[in-house]
Amino acid sequence: MTNGKAGKRTGRAKRQAAPVARKVNYRQLKNSFSPQEIYSHDEVENLHNTSLKVLKDLGIRVLLPEARKIYQTGGARVVEDMVFIGPELVQEALKSAPSSIELLAPNPICNQVYEEGTLLFTPAGGCPNVYDRVRGRSPGSIDTYRDAIKLSQSFDIIHKNPMAPEPQDIPVNLRHLSTIEAQLTLSDKLMTAFARGQGQAEQTFAIIQTAIGLSDEDFANGVWVSAVINSNSPRMLDIPMARGIIDFARAGQMTIITPFCLAGAMAPVTVSGALVLQHAEALAGIVLSQLSKNGAPVSYGGFSSNVDMKSGSPAFGTPEHLKMQLGGGQLARYIDLPWRSAAGSASNISDAQGAHENIMGVWGAVLGGANMVIHGAGWLEGGLTFGFEKFICDIEALQTIAEMFEPTLADDASQAYTAIEDVTPGGHFFATQHTMERFDTAFYSPLVADLENHGNWESKGSLTANERATEVWQKTLNNYVVPKGSLEISENINDLIIKFKEEGGASPESG
Amino acid sequence: MTNGKAGKRTGRAKRQAAPVARKVNYRQLKNSFSPQEIYSHDEVENLHNTSLKVLKDLGIRVLLPEARKIYQTGGARVVEDMVFIGPELVQEALKSAPSSIELLAPNPICNQVYEEGTLLFTPAGGCPNVYDRVRGRSPGSIDTYRDAIKLSQSFDIIHKNPMAPEPQDIPVNLRHLSTIEAQLTLSDKLMTAFARGQGQAEQTFAIIQTAIGLSDEDFANGVWVSAVINSNSPRMLDIPMARGIIDFARAGQMTIITPFCLAGAMAPVTVSGALVLQHAEALAGIVLSQLSKNGAPVSYGGFSSNVDMKSGSPAFGTPEHLKMQLGGGQLARYIDLPWRSAAGSASNISDAQGAHENIMGVWGAVLGGANMVIHGAGWLEGGLTFGFEKFICDIEALQTIAEMFEPTLADDASQAYTAIEDVTPGGHFFATQHTMERFDTAFYSPLVADLENHGNWESKGSLTANERATEVWQKTLNNYVVPKGSLEISENINDLIIKFKEEGGASPESG
Repeated sequence: MTNGKAGKRTGRAKRQAAPVARKVNYRQLKNSFSPQEIYSHDEVENLHNTSLKVLKDLGIRVLLPEARKIYQTGGARVVEDMVFIGPELVQEALKSAPSSIELLAPNPICNQVYEEGTLLFTPAGGCPNVYDRVRGRSPGSIDTYRDAIKLSQSFDIIHKNPMAPEPQDIPVNLRHLSTIEAQLTLSDKLMTAFARGQGQAEQTFAIIQTAIGLSDEDFANGVWVSAVINSNSPRMLDIPMARGIIDFARAGQMTIITPFCLAGAMAPVTVSGALVLQHAEALAGIVLSQLSKNGAPVSYGGFSSNVDMKSGSPAFGTPEHLKMQLGGGQLARYIDLPWRSAAGSASNISDAQGAHENIMGVWGAVLGGANMVIHGAGWLEGGLTFGFEKFICDIEALQTIAEMFEPTLADDASQAYTAIEDVTPGGHFFATQHTMERFDTAFYSPLVADLENHGNWESKGSLTANERATEVWQKTLNNYVVPKGSLEISENINDLIIKFKEEGGASPESG
Repeated sequence: MTNGKAGKRTGRAKRQAAPVARKVNYRQLKNSFSPQEIYSHDEVENLHNTSLKVLKDLGIRVLLPEARKIYQTGGARVVEDMVFIGPELVQEALKSAPSSIELLAPNPICNQVYEEGTLLFTPAGGCPNVYDRVRGRSPGSIDTYRDAIKLSQSFDIIHKNPMAPEPQDIPVNLRHLSTIEAQLTLSDKLMTAFARGQGQAEQTFAIIQTAIGLSDEDFANGVWVSAVINSNSPRMLDIPMARGIIDFARAGQMTIITPFCLAGAMAPVTVSGALVLQHAEALAGIVLSQLSKNGAPVSYGGFSSNVDMKSGSPAFGTPEHLKMQLGGGQLARYIDLPWRSAAGSASNISDAQGAHENIMGVWGAVLGGANMVIHGAGWLEGGLTFGFEKFICDIEALQTIAEMFEPTLADDASQAYTAIEDVTPGGHFFATQHTMERFDTAFYSPLVADLENHGNWESKGSLTANERATEVWQKTLNNYVVPKGSLEISENINDLIIKFKEEGGASPESG
């Protein structure tokens, strides 16, 4: 090769072509790990049957009269507010509930097939508070909620928008309007709503339908939004939750039936006992959804963990939590429904404990074959606070998991025999052609990890990952790009939102 | 039941009997997870064959003349310092190397069966420095080494003593004496030595033999100590490492042949390429061990990861590291040898990054079916520093994993139907008999996690896990108990150690 102009041109051309960013599809994940089991097949069947006995003989307290009526009409025995559900009713519901659900987003590249083998990550949900190192800890606001949506939009590894931090500066009768507006205009990913009464659900559905420009039929035939339904363990379904199951099912939208069974508190102290209760309550919700509309999209949910023996607080990422994730996955596969699990952290800050808890829970979910991991990023204080630095640190874990799902090439070039031949014993591979051709794209590039040596790290201020994460979320917000179509959606829904607001929105139902 | 004396007596008797501490056997672990794979069977075979081709056609540079002679006598082709090993030689070595190795400790309850399905954890190894929040960062010393041994002794989840932090205040010719003395007198667990020359190995063996009171035959027939052998990737075996393989094999002690293949630096930039090199180098070491003594205990080792693209530093807990753990496990099982993997952290401090890196690596090892996880606790700065707080935070992760291996009861009592019956809908299980009977032992009790609510946590100083861990290691050292038999061992070896010291110990070999 000659020096001079030609050489330089080649050099420049190379540089221009060079930053071929590593391309790994984080948007649609296929879990390549085989599910791990804590029970034999017989034991799973046994647990399922015990749950059926709980439903049939002990029953579940249902506070919404309309729900009790639906159960009764469907064949359940109702005594006052207690509903006793026979196994044949459960069987029918499990037959009609779909095993594969297509979840639709404003941007079709964010659509997901929710079924065995696929995996979705969602950020922290349900947090009343928000924390970051710059603004401190405070009640959630619409501004911080919008920031959380922007952060979620900025990482492909997040598949579904959060309902946190909860914008407490918006009156409760209008909050559902502000949150769905933020999701629709700042993001093009899967949408999330709270189940807080019929009025709120109907307005949310109408806004989505108008935003996307869907006919009534198109909306009803596609799953555009989902809500988490938490039973009041043990054995109780309150008014807004039962209402949500009915309204979402009738509208063809998905509910995620998720008992929050804390072993030793709202659930038996044993892993198997907590799972029996979780399973019974989830089945009760699934039955109500199918009786409300045959074939309605409904997800099995499990978020069972244990209380800490010292403080009585919920604990996460514990061995018991992970076991319930593995066992919960076995129960979900037994009834052939997609299922959500949850990670999250009880830590008060994004430190070693916070990472430990969340990463353990993420692995529990992944190895339990969960199809959706809720609270996968940003959940502090057992869900009381959405942490921005925590969100960033957790994204690193989710991305690491996603990278593991990529097939590992084992062809001749990847086995690198000739590269090994090229390097003398004791030499190095830095400059071999094999390395040069792949170096830019060979490895996952960390988001927040600092791999500098101790001297460099110290000279830059000895920052912890928590401290470094501040700059990362700030940069991410600065670089945030409004999704295509946002302006159009904004125009589509503007009048409707004004109208709903003028009408006073919709009050949440309680009880 | 009557009040008064009888009742009180019962109460007291109950209290005395009450604190039935949770008993989970951390000492001998059976990995209950099924190994996860990144390669098909054909691909594994293919990688193995490429490694054989590397050994046969490209060869490995061996710096120790005696080792080259052993290879040559065994049938390898030797040209100057290059050794070319044919597949039949590898095949023979794999036939004679044992698949199951009993590892012996001064206390038989610390013995381990090292084979497919079992799992050992060892702390950080090879660290020149030590860090804790009280004394800061400094070169390792005999005092801090002794502290590390005491900490390792105090947690059942640690199965084997570390060779770190390295006591740099002891001259190199005496260091092997001080470290084995510390292990033998402060601990009753599996022992570890460096392979730094024949003189050091022989003195170490003699001390162990004298300490335990073993005949020559008993010592030779039991595996009492092991050493990690790092090849100088790519394709080089230096003098102390080759020496170590020969000496340990002849003495019937175990070497753990562990190429440290950093993809993109000392190894090809691809996962499969790095594994081909790792596998070839490991096989070369295994062949030397078997040619030195047929049937000598030898462990397959894999510690391959990638360099960070920004800093050029080794990275850990990355997707590539984990993939190499899973693939490394497949190669180890293909040749039917027990194998060691490694976790560890590049982080400079025990923070979210440190937890992330180590926990990811621990999961990679566990899911890769590793039988020994080295650097499982306390490895900071990519191994440059043994961190006391990091050690404590990492112990929490190892204990969580171990708890997962405990069978989950699914009998009637564990399914808790009657407990569920006992609690009214919306009630709680705190005070049920089912809970009371199990509460003390139901859950893993965290070591460093703080599950207090935000207010309590803040009022106690908003301590991070790293900060809280200081108190934990301090308490652990305060509560450290010298193992039974320590005094006797001390008396047994006293004269011999004085003698070796007077003779000037033994200089390390290099080159």
